[in-house]
Amino acid sequence: MSQLRRASAELIGTFWLVFGGCGSAVFAAAFPEVGIGLLGVSFAFGLTVLTMAYSIGHISGCHLNPAVTIGLWAGGRFPTKDILSYIIAQIAGAILAAGALYLIASGKADYDLAVKGLAANGFGAASPGGYSLNSGIAIEIILTFGFLMIILGSTDSRAPAGFAPIAIGLGLTLIHLISIPITNTSVNPARSTGPALIQGGVALQQLWMFWVAPLIGGVLGGLTYRALAAEETAIKPAITGEPAR
Amino acid sequence: MSQLRRASAELIGTFWLVFGGCGSAVFAAAFPEVGIGLLGVSFAFGLTVLTMAYSIGHISGCHLNPAVTIGLWAGGRFPTKDILSYIIAQIAGAILAAGALYLIASGKADYDLAVKGLAANGFGAASPGGYSLNSGIAIEIILTFGFLMIILGSTDSRAPAGFAPIAIGLGLTLIHLISIPITNTSVNPARSTGPALIQGGVALQQLWMFWVAPLIGGVLGGLTYRALAAEETAIKPAITGEPAR
Amino acid sequence: MSQLRRASAELIGTFWLVFGGCGSAVFAAAFPEVGIGLLGVSFAFGLTVLTMAYSIGHISGCHLNPAVTIGLWAGGRFPTKDILSYIIAQIAGAILAAGALYLIASGKADYDLAVKGLAANGFGAASPGGYSLNSGIAIEIILTFGFLMIILGSTDSRAPAGFAPIAIGLGLTLIHLISIPITNTSVNPARSTGPALIQGGVALQQLWMFWVAPLIGGVLGGLTYRALAAEETAIKPAITGEPAR
Amino acid sequence: MSQLRRASAELIGTFWLVFGGCGSAVFAAAFPEVGIGLLGVSFAFGLTVLTMAYSIGHISGCHLNPAVTIGLWAGGRFPTKDILSYIIAQIAGAILAAGALYLIASGKADYDLAVKGLAANGFGAASPGGYSLNSGIAIEIILTFGFLMIILGSTDSRAPAGFAPIAIGLGLTLIHLISIPITNTSVNPARSTGPALIQGGVALQQLWMFWVAPLIGGVLGGLTYRALAAEETAIKPAITGEPAR
Repeated sequence: MSQLRRASAELIGTFWLVFGGCGSAVFAAAFPEVGIGLLGVSFAFGLTVLTMAYSIGHISGCHLNPAVTIGLWAGGRFPTKDILSYIIAQIAGAILAAGALYLIASGKADYDLAVKGLAANGFGAASPGGYSLNSGIAIEIILTFGFLMIILGSTDSRAPAGFAPIAIGLGLTLIHLISIPITNTSVNPARSTGPALIQGGVALQQLWMFWVAPLIGGVLGGLTYRALAAEETAIKPAITGEPAR
Repeated sequence: MSQLRRASAELIGTFWLVFGGCGSAVFAAAFPEVGIGLLGVSFAFGLTVLTMAYSIGHISGCHLNPAVTIGLWAGGRFPTKDILSYIIAQIAGAILAAGALYLIASGKADYDLAVKGLAANGFGAASPGGYSLNSGIAIEIILTFGFLMIILGSTDSRAPAGFAPIAIGLGLTLIHLISIPITNTSVNPARSTGPALIQGGVALQQLWMFWVAPLIGGVLGGLTYRALAAEETAIKPAITGEPAR
Repeated sequence: MSQLRRASAELIGTFWLVFGGCGSAVFAAAFPEVGIGLLGVSFAFGLTVLTMAYSIGHISGCHLNPAVTIGLWAGGRFPTKDILSYIIAQIAGAILAAGALYLIASGKADYDLAVKGLAANGFGAASPGGYSLNSGIAIEIILTFGFLMIILGSTDSRAPAGFAPIAIGLGLTLIHLISIPITNTSVNPARSTGPALIQGGVALQQLWMFWVAPLIGGVLGGLTYRALAAEETAIKPAITGEPAR
Repeated sequence: MSQLRRASAELIGTFWLVFGGCGSAVFAAAFPEVGIGLLGVSFAFGLTVLTMAYSIGHISGCHLNPAVTIGLWAGGRFPTKDILSYIIAQIAGAILAAGALYLIASGKADYDLAVKGLAANGFGAASPGGYSLNSGIAIEIILTFGFLMIILGSTDSRAPAGFAPIAIGLGLTLIHLISIPITNTSVNPARSTGPALIQGGVALQQLWMFWVAPLIGGVLGGLTYRALAAEETAIKPAITGEPAR
């Protein structure tokens, strides 16, 4: 599979993740009386990954997330040479999605970007539930750690084949069920970057944290799974050009 | 499998999609205090497709949607000669379902078709959240594009076998989680046609858009996946009489 | 597998269906502010079947429902000689579950069986949304028809192996998402019988309909799938002692 | 797989269960207007098990629960010599998770442990819905019994391979849909122990019941499945060092 095709798949997939996840939050979460709430947004984020993993998993591995790309690299499952092109494609897809959401949201007469935003991430005064920076850092590290454990474990050759997209997608749903009130849930620097660039302001000022904490959590998850399941990495140490997932 | 059997399966399946999806909206979405809301309606639409794909996928491919039939054709997965019979069956199933829903809803004393409708699609003044025509066209194109990406990808021979109905069904759930407030969510001209014919009025006047936009999105999705995954189409260029899904 | 073991599995499984499905409605649906609503009850009913199908499907076929047993028989998948023992076991399990629910519910000081009931089915004045007898008959026939289509299709040898419990369980969730407001959703005479016997009154007077309509729908579903998928039944006409699902 | 690796996996997995399940309850269940409610908490608990079962099932069997470990032992699927290390690891993971939740929750200005707690279990005055001790004992025994039936059945060699984590995870979701109002749902002594130790007070005084009842239910489930499916245990009586799940 050529590198251009793989990067294109990552771009489309990350577009889908941000468009679907943040879109459900912007359009449908607080719809009067019958809105989908945080539960619906949690399912939306998870289902973007579940669906794209079955759609493009065999093309690019369907990372859609720089913390996943780096975590897989730390876990010995992804080659160094492909990291940059993947992350650039992920960021591009996220920005395009945030732009598309803004244009569509503007088709509603009373939409105001400054008030309603695009589901950006935040902490302190910008945390949905008013949680501190420290709480935000802790939750993003712990949940990205768990996310990488799920990704590395469910794509392990000893796990049943074919089910990884279900585990990973519903794992992202779970992560949102826990943490939307704390940081609006990132665990994905690209997902944070798209809305922050369009919204600007506080979202952009706080963007650094949503790169630092998920990347730390992702690396810890990759290293931990590698240590925990060491026998397999002893058997299959080679990092191939094809992503495992 | 004879053409009559395949068309019959499409008719029954599309009946199920419209009866279940629109029925959940009409009967249960706004039930006082414990109603299922837009989240429940999103699951209902998705589960109609998930269940029928396991039930009749091996008979007709379980398209249940002219935009899917045309998108699969554009993606090189469906023969030209079968398009017409599939689309006619899908429309017939959708009309029968809307009629059945109307009859059952009329068994409640205070049901008024003109007020409560049958979950038809709409834009502008008929959009649940008051979104413009342009927003409606954009969301229907983007989401049908993504839907075809999921369908073509998850039924690709390189994707794990057997999981496509889960990806496709929950993909339709995701699509509804995003866009019910904008157009009441179509991505399916047959699903739009059934309720519009029974309701008449604005729903019927706006029906054109729910043919045009999903078909554009479906063709774009089919062509994009075909280009992205070109190696496989090089290996298996033949369009067989049996649908891939 | 001995007939006693198979009947025991049906009894335990139907206990689980009624205890879990009706229990979620009695205990959790209308819990103040954070109750699970009709969406949660729909998932509960579906998940009782999904979980038991993976647990005892290889023992008894996991019907848990006289309409399923009769529908499978009509579809040529279940032997006449086992019908009676299955249905007796299903009814016994349902009655035991309703009794257990009543005892546990009575551990709450303000529980009043006459007021809150045990999630029995009903029509007319006993319909949650005030739907007529005719609407109730129609919805129960249509949805049991669809349920049998899903069961027969997803357990067809041409469908992907192993996924039937997901399709069937989530199919029951879908059925509840549509129809709780109309009849409180039966599609299962045993599920209706348990609570009706403990509650008595209107629930018991209306119980006949929840035997008649689901059995009609089940037979129609069985015959329709058999006709639609005739080639397979031509290839495998033998009805074995082991249930197909 | 070394015993240390297996115990480490149990510790991480039980951390994930308590952090995710109780965390969703503490942070998101009652979030104003868009909170996830008991339905969201039920999905969160279930998805912690679903995701970890795919992640570490091939390492430790992913019990995450002393009642599961004991129930599998009673069912003839787990060796006596490993019971202690598993249960110690599970308790340690649960306590660490409750501690982490407390620290993160404290990052919100108005969080008060004595008022809001950490989603501990309880009965009588500490039951969310005011259910008695007897109701609590009954529901915990019945639901843990059913949970072990699901676990033993879905990991039976005659059940379709690979689906057990879906059945078991969504089985835990179902269990929560029924019983949060009664005991806040345990079926897992480790999950009860973590929050009780941090909260102290009534939660700690009532902790005994959430060891006794789930262990009784787990043993009954293990013995019942073993009897029901006796033919297999006759064929494969050996208890291997590797957990079946």
